[in-house]
This record gives sequence, structure tokens and C-alpha cells, in this order.
Amino acid sequence: MSRSAPLGRGTKVRTAVLAATIDELSERGYAAFTIDNVAQRTGVHKTTVYRRWPDREALIAEALADSVATDIPIPDTGSVDDDLRALARSLVTWANSASGRAVLAVMVSTAAGLPAPPNSARHVFRDRIRQTLPVVTRAIARGEIPDATDPAEMIKTLVAPIYFRVLITGEPVDDNTADAAATLALTAARAHLFAHD
Amino acid sequence: MSRSAPLGRGTKVRTAVLAATIDELSERGYAAFTIDNVAQRTGVHKTTVYRRWPDREALIAEALADSVATDIPIPDTGSVDDDLRALARSLVTWANSASGRAVLAVMVSTAAGLPAPPNSARHVFRDRIRQTLPVVTRAIARGEIPDATDPAEMIKTLVAPIYFRVLITGEPVDDNTADAAATLALTAARAHLFAHD
Repeated sequence: MSRSAPLGRGTKVRTAVLAATIDELSERGYAAFTIDNVAQRTGVHKTTVYRRWPDREALIAEALADSVATDIPIPDTGSVDDDLRALARSLVTWANSASGRAVLAVMVSTAAGLPAPPNSARHVFRDRIRQTLPVVTRAIARGEIPDATDPAEMIKTLVAPIYFRVLITGEPVDDNTADAAATLALTAARAHLFAHD
Repeated sequence: MSRSAPLGRGTKVRTAVLAATIDELSERGYAAFTIDNVAQRTGVHKTTVYRRWPDREALIAEALADSVATDIPIPDTGSVDDDLRALARSLVTWANSASGRAVLAVMVSTAAGLPAPPNSARHVFRDRIRQTLPVVTRAIARGEIPDATDPAEMIKTLVAPIYFRVLITGEPVDDNTADAAATLALTAARAHLFAHD
């Protein structure tokens, strides 16, 4: 390449390509997704995209992880009640957004028997649950919930009612849904339902 | 038709066609589903199928409803704890079966952005939740849970963790998953989390 690459150009390209990946998934779905379309949409040469992401699975996995990490930040307010409410509320906001819908579509496409990234979407999801566990371990350290609480079980109980409504019943989800999910997870933790064996 | 139709033939045809519908969904998925394939598989003339089910949406909706009603019966043991455990356990068994997977795939295909029966699968699901509400209203009448318990919220809290694992995290579900879900729903009900406004 003869053009000089100014500082930060790599980051800008990455951001643009990942955003275009979500947009493509949102508009065309997983089955019709191609790296060529993403390159065209971004105005970046496709060899630039392929250099960083060898195939569409790698690109989609990184775009999903990036969407979740950006839109559902991990709170640290000093109170488990506030942390869980914040987490559930940002999950609800994300699930109601176009990019959230696109990510969810890829996540469930394995279940729908589609040609799908068999594990990458689930890995994204499991990684994010893992990254969220400090919300629970900090609460244990502060004495807000029982010592023996299993962090992953608590986080899954928080998010399950929201995913269930979005994906299965198709009911709308809002801040009330989020707050009810937080109360459910806290009540269960304090009743020792997530105790390790 | 020149052949005489013995008593019960209609029921047998219905059962065979609905079973073949689930098998076709299971093996080929929703997108490739046709009434002609179902007729061929059942050995019934396709006009016989079309006479009863005018289009594939009607046929699929009835097959889904029938699968759920047969495989997830509504218990009435006289104890809400036992009823909820039985309900959750049969949901788990069904979700682990080939027909359960096929039904779930159709249920989430709307979320996956597929050409899908936009409402019929959700209607099946909502109808089944409605049919399950007596489990909760009987428990209220027996004084096992608070009077103000919202039956639908309680049933959704029971089933959400199971659907979440099957569809999102891809974790295995078993009787322990079912029993934990029942305990969660009961604990929440007794803590007045499902109180009407």
C-alpha cells in the first residue's frame, strides 16, 4: 500500500467493520451474510477485512462480543441490588435495539436448525457471563448475599426471564421486566437457592 | 373414494399426519417443510391433508399444539410443589427429545429472522401457558401460595430457566434443572414476587 496509515486508522477500520457486520446481520440475516458485503458497506478493501478476520465466523464472533461488551457494560455501583438492576436494564435496552435483535438472531440460529456458527455465538455468551461474575463475587465479599452463592447460576437467573420473553413469548420487555428479574435473582440468592453443593 | 372408511380412521390419519409433520420439521426444518412431503411420508393422499389443513401454517400450528399437549401434560397431584416439579420435568424430557427440539426450532425461528409462522408458534405457546394456569389457581385455593399470585408470571418463571439453557447457553437440562426451576418459582411466589398490582 502506498498510502500512509495514520495513527488510529486500525481502530477506526475495526469499529467500522464490526458495526457493518451487525448491520448486515440485522438486515440480511446470518444465512446471507458475506465478508464481501461487509467490505463493500464499509468502503474497505476486502483483503483488509480478510487479513484481520480469516473467515466470517471469526468476524461474526468478534462483532457479537463487541456489541454485547459495549451495550451491556458491567456495573460496579457498590450495591448488588443496583448492579443487578443496571445489568438487567441494559440487557433490556440492548434486546430492544436493532443490533441486539441481530445478535439474538444469530444466537438462536443453532436452535432453529440453521446453518449457523455452531459454537461461536454460545462462546460469546458464555464469555460474557464469565466476565459478569465479579458483580456476584463483589456482593459476596460485601456480605450482601450468602457466601456459598454460585455466581453463574445467579447471573443466569437474572437474564433468563428477559431472554425468555424476547425469544419465546415475544412479549415486550422494559425496565419493569428488568427490575423484576433483579428482584427474582436477589430473592433466590438470599434464600440460598444458588448454594454450591 | 371407493374404499369404506372404518370408524376411527379419521383419528388415525390425524395422528399419523401430525407425527409426520413433527418428523419433517425435525429432519428438514421449517424452511423446507411442505405438505406434499408430509402426505408422502404418511402414505395419505395430499388432498386428504389439504381438506383438513388448508395450508402449512395451520398444519404446523396443530402439530406443535398436539406435541406440547401430549408430552407436557398438566399435573394435578394435590400439591403445588409436586405439580411444578412434574411440569418442569416433563418440559425437560420433551426439550431433550427429537420432537421437542423440532418444536423449539419453529418457536425460535421468528427470532432468528427466518421465514417463519410469525404468530402461530407463539400462539401455541401462549395457549399452553393459559391451559397450565389451573396448577397455580388450585395452589392458591389450597392456601399453598399467596392469594395475589399472578398465575402466568409464576408459570413463566418456572419454564424460563429451562428454555434459556436449551436455547441460549446450550447447556444440558435434566431433572436437577427441573427441580431447581420449581424451587425458584415457589420461593418467588411465597416471597410475593408475583403479586398483582
